[in-house]
Amino acid sequence: MRVDLNCDMGEGYPSDARIMPLVTSANVACGFHASDPGTMRRTVRLARDHGVAVGAHPSFPDRVGFGRRFMAASPDEVRDDVTYQIGALWAFCRAEGVRLTHVKAHGALYNAAAESADLARAICEATRAIDPSLKVVCLAGSRMVEVAREMGVAHVEEAFADRAYTSTGTLVSRRTAGAVIDDPDQVAERASKMVREQRVLAIDGTVVPLHPQTLCLHGDTPGAERLAVAIRRRLEADGIAIRASGDAS
Amino acid sequence: MRVDLNCDMGEGYPSDARIMPLVTSANVACGFHASDPGTMRRTVRLARDHGVAVGAHPSFPDRVGFGRRFMAASPDEVRDDVTYQIGALWAFCRAEGVRLTHVKAHGALYNAAAESADLARAICEATRAIDPSLKVVCLAGSRMVEVAREMGVAHVEEAFADRAYTSTGTLVSRRTAGAVIDDPDQVAERASKMVREQRVLAIDGTVVPLHPQTLCLHGDTPGAERLAVAIRRRLEADGIAIRASGDAS
Amino acid sequence: MRVDLNCDMGEGYPSDARIMPLVTSANVACGFHASDPGTMRRTVRLARDHGVAVGAHPSFPDRVGFGRRFMAASPDEVRDDVTYQIGALWAFCRAEGVRLTHVKAHGALYNAAAESADLARAICEATRAIDPSLKVVCLAGSRMVEVAREMGVAHVEEAFADRAYTSTGTLVSRRTAGAVIDDPDQVAERASKMVREQRVLAIDGTVVPLHPQTLCLHGDTPGAERLAVAIRRRLEADGIAIRASGDAS
Amino acid sequence: MRVDLNCDMGEGYPSDARIMPLVTSANVACGFHASDPGTMRRTVRLARDHGVAVGAHPSFPDRVGFGRRFMAASPDEVRDDVTYQIGALWAFCRAEGVRLTHVKAHGALYNAAAESADLARAICEATRAIDPSLKVVCLAGSRMVEVAREMGVAHVEEAFADRAYTSTGTLVSRRTAGAVIDDPDQVAERASKMVREQRVLAIDGTVVPLHPQTLCLHGDTPGAERLAVAIRRRLEADGIAIRASGDAS
Repeated sequence: MRVDLNCDMGEGYPSDARIMPLVTSANVACGFHASDPGTMRRTVRLARDHGVAVGAHPSFPDRVGFGRRFMAASPDEVRDDVTYQIGALWAFCRAEGVRLTHVKAHGALYNAAAESADLARAICEATRAIDPSLKVVCLAGSRMVEVAREMGVAHVEEAFADRAYTSTGTLVSRRTAGAVIDDPDQVAERASKMVREQRVLAIDGTVVPLHPQTLCLHGDTPGAERLAVAIRRRLEADGIAIRASGDAS
Repeated sequence: MRVDLNCDMGEGYPSDARIMPLVTSANVACGFHASDPGTMRRTVRLARDHGVAVGAHPSFPDRVGFGRRFMAASPDEVRDDVTYQIGALWAFCRAEGVRLTHVKAHGALYNAAAESADLARAICEATRAIDPSLKVVCLAGSRMVEVAREMGVAHVEEAFADRAYTSTGTLVSRRTAGAVIDDPDQVAERASKMVREQRVLAIDGTVVPLHPQTLCLHGDTPGAERLAVAIRRRLEADGIAIRASGDAS
Repeated sequence: MRVDLNCDMGEGYPSDARIMPLVTSANVACGFHASDPGTMRRTVRLARDHGVAVGAHPSFPDRVGFGRRFMAASPDEVRDDVTYQIGALWAFCRAEGVRLTHVKAHGALYNAAAESADLARAICEATRAIDPSLKVVCLAGSRMVEVAREMGVAHVEEAFADRAYTSTGTLVSRRTAGAVIDDPDQVAERASKMVREQRVLAIDGTVVPLHPQTLCLHGDTPGAERLAVAIRRRLEADGIAIRASGDAS
Repeated sequence: MRVDLNCDMGEGYPSDARIMPLVTSANVACGFHASDPGTMRRTVRLARDHGVAVGAHPSFPDRVGFGRRFMAASPDEVRDDVTYQIGALWAFCRAEGVRLTHVKAHGALYNAAAESADLARAICEATRAIDPSLKVVCLAGSRMVEVAREMGVAHVEEAFADRAYTSTGTLVSRRTAGAVIDDPDQVAERASKMVREQRVLAIDGTVVPLHPQTLCLHGDTPGAERLAVAIRRRLEADGIAIRASGDAS
């Protein structure tokens, strides 16, 4: 049993340096929702210094909204925006002697691609065209997983231990009460169970099957570091190896 | 005898499709002074369809000023901005099956790097770190040529047949009368002479030695197409082969 | 009988100077989908020199998509984006001794506000809070007209003589065949009829009541100038006065 | 004896809410180096709730560099950029029932205008054209003060109690050792002395005459709040009234 712990990085939160030693994959913002060239280089270096796998974290072009607002971009526009962002981050990886391992869409683009086959395909196409060994990170059990599978694109399924699930396997909206789980022990428990039992208890009590290969930590939540430590300890206590999914390739 | 004809592309001028068949190298804007992801892909495709060598055309981050205003960015900031932009264009080249051959800084950044060893070095470092086979385009005879030579970075010297030169080999400012030469025959004549005689007559009558490997055409000047045709004819009539400098590598 | 002829301006099309003398209201882009401070000032001056009424033309923040892509911005975000843009244009009006007369949302924001009472309210609130004498331009017969009426916000109903209508009074999507009417005579005829008969024939033959106080000309269509002349002539021949709706206040 | 305490606000630092009750004037970022429409509104409200005078804080268009990099913008471009930004903030003031009292350029633009009469004039022109009662904040004793005086533009002279001065009355560059004074007591002492004695001791021991009407606090320095409290106490203990310079009009 193994799982990857990933975290979004380079988004302007001061927690990066404290969280980096605790994760195995870093999704680096590429300038469309946050970050800038200097921050991208520093974030790639930080990941490299901790042996953390580096991925691109492309977004809709929406800095003011931090990439959290859906935009009615066409699949071609999404493909081109993602291509641009992956390339920009790739250049810093190249300059710093780091292998780019994965691509994980950010915010509204991630959520939209989990449900829209067209957008999922756009992200998969952009990624594959740059390097077929790059893994696309998809919401576990989502339409995007199917799309990646159909296209034969390398991918990784992701779950969220600190978020409530609906009975169909999507995340409960942050605006709903109970959507975010704060208690470190409870989150650590959920994380371990998701990996060991390959399922999650939805908010309505339904059991939802899930095959998470990577778990997402949020660096912007207060106590993110403590939460990361709690999850790591619990996973290790339960015999789950914590390793970048990129290592599996 | 041979020379490359290059032109800035993807900057929003409607002339790209008419000029592309007439040049051998295209410098593609990367979003910091002009262009956007969709335009970059279309421009790379257009270049590919005409067998034109593709280069990145990075700029200071200044869309409103079209990259024509000097910015007091540090060498590290320039290096990172250039890295970002080369990477973004590289991704489209990769996706479209095109080799990226060169890097030519735009506008104020080009001019600043011609005189500042620090900025020249920043551009050379960014380029080499991504791919040592990439050629950096430098103003012929400028400080940047020396820097590239000292660093052992592949480079190409560029001259401007439609611009007046000072006695020290820099371009006369556009604000000075006589700085831009409009007459197609005269420009074609200058172009041919620069390549054959390896020198140019400065605005004050001085003879300035020059070793141009590529000549710059401006797509945004009225009659750009006619000018390009005039230059091509004259060069060919004078036995000068027109070929991308990237082909020389 | 009277009608206003309005046109979007300062969006980077070279037609502004030719179209300005032919219209009575100019909607000036404010930097979020097109334009920049210098262009805004020049456009305000151009309007002033032709005695054309000046309005703000706020957009979603989407330069790459020219404001044509819907963004899931909250009503508060829309209100604030619109406030910002109106204020920016107001400053140029003030500096150039011009009265700001109206506000017309651009592209996707215009279309979204025509259907969403929340977004219509956001635009109306932003406008009224700055100056209650400013008129909000709404798609004739749309939900936004009702919202403005309920709020007691000054408004103007707008129709499109060169666009096909659905039976519910919305514009047929540009992606549908027959959505755009090219023939100048036909457009002029529709323009005149809309004003005289206060109705339009929808694409399915239904008669849709309409009370247009302003008609939109598109400066970016080829032949925009010729079209504007044709419409003006026809309206005048039919005894319809062409005057800025701002003059009616 | 009286002085104004001003602070830059809405720049993304979490200290705004803690600093606002301690100052008398807030310079609100307008989106060109930091902030966005929603932040501008919230910052104007925060200032209003504390009875703090609101000013615009326009910058060169440089978000990545936080407006700290000089840009070779022409005086007309600066005038238009400043016009745009003042207008945008004015709109939020208007919507929130607040009077806009002053304009203080940010970062590299502030420093450039302190030395360049052309840029100083551009800022003064933009400000006066919008509202002649707006006061322009200038570095005390700088060229900009002379320009404002010559133009008859309302202005306020500003000093920096936590920064070392050169013998010509300019600020010692942050890159020089001793440029920034950290000790709260020392800064408070300097603040009080500047106001009472109308002079400052330069880094080389020279006495520089100075007529500060407003003192700048930096919200982004660690301990900014404690520093503000120390300055206030010292000024009050020394019988100096702390009041917005806008109140003097």
